Amino acid sequence: MNLQAVGHIRSELRDLASAPKQGVEGAPDAWLEVESAFERALSGMKAGDEIVVITWLHLADRALLEVRPRGDSRNPLTGVFSTRSPHRPNPVGLHLVTVRSVERSRLRIGPIEAIDGTPVIDVKSGSVS
Amino acid sequence: MNLQAVGHIRSELRDLASAPKQGVEGAPDAWLEVESAFERALSGMKAGDEIVVITWLHLADRALLEVRPRGDSRNPLTGVFSTRSPHRPNPVGLHLVTVRSVERSRLRIGPIEAIDGTPVIDVKSGSVS
Repeated sequence: MNLQAVGHIRSELRDLASAPKQGVEGAPDAWLEVESAFERALSGMKAGDEIVVITWLHLADRALLEVRPRGDSRNPLTGVFSTRSPHRPNPVGLHLVTVRSVERSRLRIGPIEAIDGTPVIDVKSGSVS
Repeated sequence: MNLQAVGHIRSELRDLASAPKQGVEGAPDAWLEVESAFERALSGMKAGDEIVVITWLHLADRALLEVRPRGDSRNPLTGVFSTRSPHRPNPVGLHLVTVRSVERSRLRIGPIEAIDGTPVIDVKSGSVS
């Protein structure tokens, strides 16, 4: 299972401290820049499409198996598979976003809470189901 | 970006020919068996929870960048990032399922179209957003 980056997020969010926990919590729009080798996989994409962007949360702690949800010490320790914590064995991020515009090898998308430089591993049409 | 299997799907679906294209299209329930090293990440999971299971579609063709959606030759060639095709550079599968029951290191989940032996790379609470 060899993972390759198909692109990266280019965002005004430069660090985790400035990023909301979820896209719907006030996150900005950002660019999704696709590697030129994968440009053809964008064909048919258009403004207004809803897509799922799948990222690799490269700053996550992959050894954490339990967390207090939303980083709130009043919440009980909970297995990461029962949460949306970025910290997990494979730090995969899911982002349901709207395509604002399409250029040759990049998409303007949002809202998205992923920070600048986050690797993108996949893009899919529609919702999760 | 080093991916590890956190578990596997154990299903009555033995091959792609017998699997529907989406879970809602008549797929069965299945077991999600978690590796013992990651058992603690299941704490707090309970019957009735909605979760997103993220799989690695190990039989996919990773070189395909354009497909005819749903394998229908009447559909136009479309970039895989605009589709739900399993064929894509990183063959990540998203499955929104209900937890039917929880045992020590496995979950009964469904409906899910992933075939027997499919590696699981992540599990998250709730929907995609």
